Amino acid sequence: MPTSRQFLLSSRPEGELSDDDLELREVELPELGEGEIRARTTWMSVDPTIRIWMSDIPQYMPPIAIGEVVRSIGVAEVEASTHPGFAVGDQVSTMIGWQTRIQGKPEALGCMKLPEGTDPGMFLATVGPTSGMTAYFGLFDIGEPKPGETVVVDAAAGAVGSLVGQLAKLHGCRAVGIAGGPEKCAYVTEELGFDACIDYKNEDVGAGLDRACPDGIDVCFENVGGPIFDEILLRMNNFGRVSLCGMVSGYNRAGEQLPGPYQFPMVLMRRLKVQGFIILDYADRYAEAAAKLGAWVAQGKLESRLHVREGFESLPDALRELVGGKSAKIGKMVVRF
Amino acid sequence: MPTSRQFLLSSRPEGELSDDDLELREVELPELGEGEIRARTTWMSVDPTIRIWMSDIPQYMPPIAIGEVVRSIGVAEVEASTHPGFAVGDQVSTMIGWQTRIQGKPEALGCMKLPEGTDPGMFLATVGPTSGMTAYFGLFDIGEPKPGETVVVDAAAGAVGSLVGQLAKLHGCRAVGIAGGPEKCAYVTEELGFDACIDYKNEDVGAGLDRACPDGIDVCFENVGGPIFDEILLRMNNFGRVSLCGMVSGYNRAGEQLPGPYQFPMVLMRRLKVQGFIILDYADRYAEAAAKLGAWVAQGKLESRLHVREGFESLPDALRELVGGKSAKIGKMVVRF
Repeated sequence: MPTSRQFLLSSRPEGELSDDDLELREVELPELGEGEIRARTTWMSVDPTIRIWMSDIPQYMPPIAIGEVVRSIGVAEVEASTHPGFAVGDQVSTMIGWQTRIQGKPEALGCMKLPEGTDPGMFLATVGPTSGMTAYFGLFDIGEPKPGETVVVDAAAGAVGSLVGQLAKLHGCRAVGIAGGPEKCAYVTEELGFDACIDYKNEDVGAGLDRACPDGIDVCFENVGGPIFDEILLRMNNFGRVSLCGMVSGYNRAGEQLPGPYQFPMVLMRRLKVQGFIILDYADRYAEAAAKLGAWVAQGKLESRLHVREGFESLPDALRELVGGKSAKIGKMVVRF
Repeated sequence: MPTSRQFLLSSRPEGELSDDDLELREVELPELGEGEIRARTTWMSVDPTIRIWMSDIPQYMPPIAIGEVVRSIGVAEVEASTHPGFAVGDQVSTMIGWQTRIQGKPEALGCMKLPEGTDPGMFLATVGPTSGMTAYFGLFDIGEPKPGETVVVDAAAGAVGSLVGQLAKLHGCRAVGIAGGPEKCAYVTEELGFDACIDYKNEDVGAGLDRACPDGIDVCFENVGGPIFDEILLRMNNFGRVSLCGMVSGYNRAGEQLPGPYQFPMVLMRRLKVQGFIILDYADRYAEAAAKLGAWVAQGKLESRLHVREGFESLPDALRELVGGKSAKIGKMVVRF
């Protein structure tokens, strides 16, 4: 019988995810029922939000239950099908979780079929909900940038940030990134075409923003939180918009009483709009984003780099690398099975 | 010659405003020029934002310069006029500042003529920019309440908060206030008609909100900041709106590095919109608000209580009482000259 290997959450991590918080098991899959598919996971998206789901802080979905498969988005290839719409070899994407196979009715699994010939890694990196669509809706819907305005994004060499700046440029904005280290900054400006990138590890972020944003900041796409966000808040223009996508600097500290932004009063003084968003709320507009993003990728106007780790067993390490912030990673973190 | 007595800002207060931060002087007014008016201050609005203007933190207007008259809104009665549109006895409202007379062209002074027979104290309390109009635009434009939703406002017995809840009720919402002490809470529920009021001095605010907002909070009109705001954030519904009007709990601590809301991550988790606003941005819509508010007052649907202090010299004390939070004051703080 085919099996699925799974990582279950066995306890809630305190601080960094520990191997002891996970249980590895193998389950046998039953015979395929009517209208079902069985698919083998090929690529897994690794996203900071997985670390949030492991905590039981108040959040936007129920946390992963203890004993439940760790939740995550991936791509799988159909191995067997009794469903008329899915053939062996088709690629599907859904919330697969940290496991090597899924089985069931594709409707119940929430499977989306990828267009034939799609590169699954690049799909996860440029179009998938946690990367391209997050950048797309977060920038355009929440950030409301106008051509000529200045857009600042932190974690700019990362999966989402790298796309945000490129989309801002496509929209006629000035794009300024913040990233850690000269290699990432060079990637952001030279390969992706941002107007400037501030190296938060080697220069004062405030001084860098003053230099790169002489007319202030109109839109902030916020991934990080903490002191970098404070420096941005201080330089927001009147009526600026903050698209709050993530606060990865705090994700390993869930449960601690972390102070909010010290410059929070700027929200009042500069009449800012700060708005959080979660990509799942845009499910009924995924097709719109996929069409736009897919076209830009096809035209060579939007690119992403993959940061690939190999093998199912590397999932915990990949998440630690992503959330710990110690990685020299550029682009979208994925695990290839 | 007529004179004007003035309070000038002589140094920036550290913590509470001290008398040493002010200089009292008397200036002689020149002869009236062509198209000018001279008006004697009769009522002064006392607002927490004056304390912000005294600090040189980043803010929405230039801070009051050292040596400048303290800025504030008031009502004055015309004593002399060479302007065809203003007659002796007319009442005008503008940014008079802490002084007993103003003189000049009414256009340059930004004077708005009050309708004949207007009670100046009640005008400042229910229609004036820092009270009624602030409540009006902050609730409806920023808060976007829908009938049936729950609106929470803190400083609910104060000048703005007391109006916010009444406007929310007029709009078909559930209105919940937070105020300090049984007298204020009784005023809020029994006189103003809020559905509930939490006494933050005598009960746990979180437990009170759980009781008074069984379906969560859709709109928060925020005047206070600090721990009360955190309790509200924890209970905001998905897609809730926070209308950020003030953070009076921090106004005597400008310059200190105060932490932002500890529950700031809720903005992401619950996909909140947090938006700051300043009433001066709505100048081109004052007429709309004045018409609506004036009609509700005339119909007895909107009320405010005046907290009156007497005499020009009481201005510094009035501000200290307002910002210090130790007062048992209910309603709109005004000084009658």
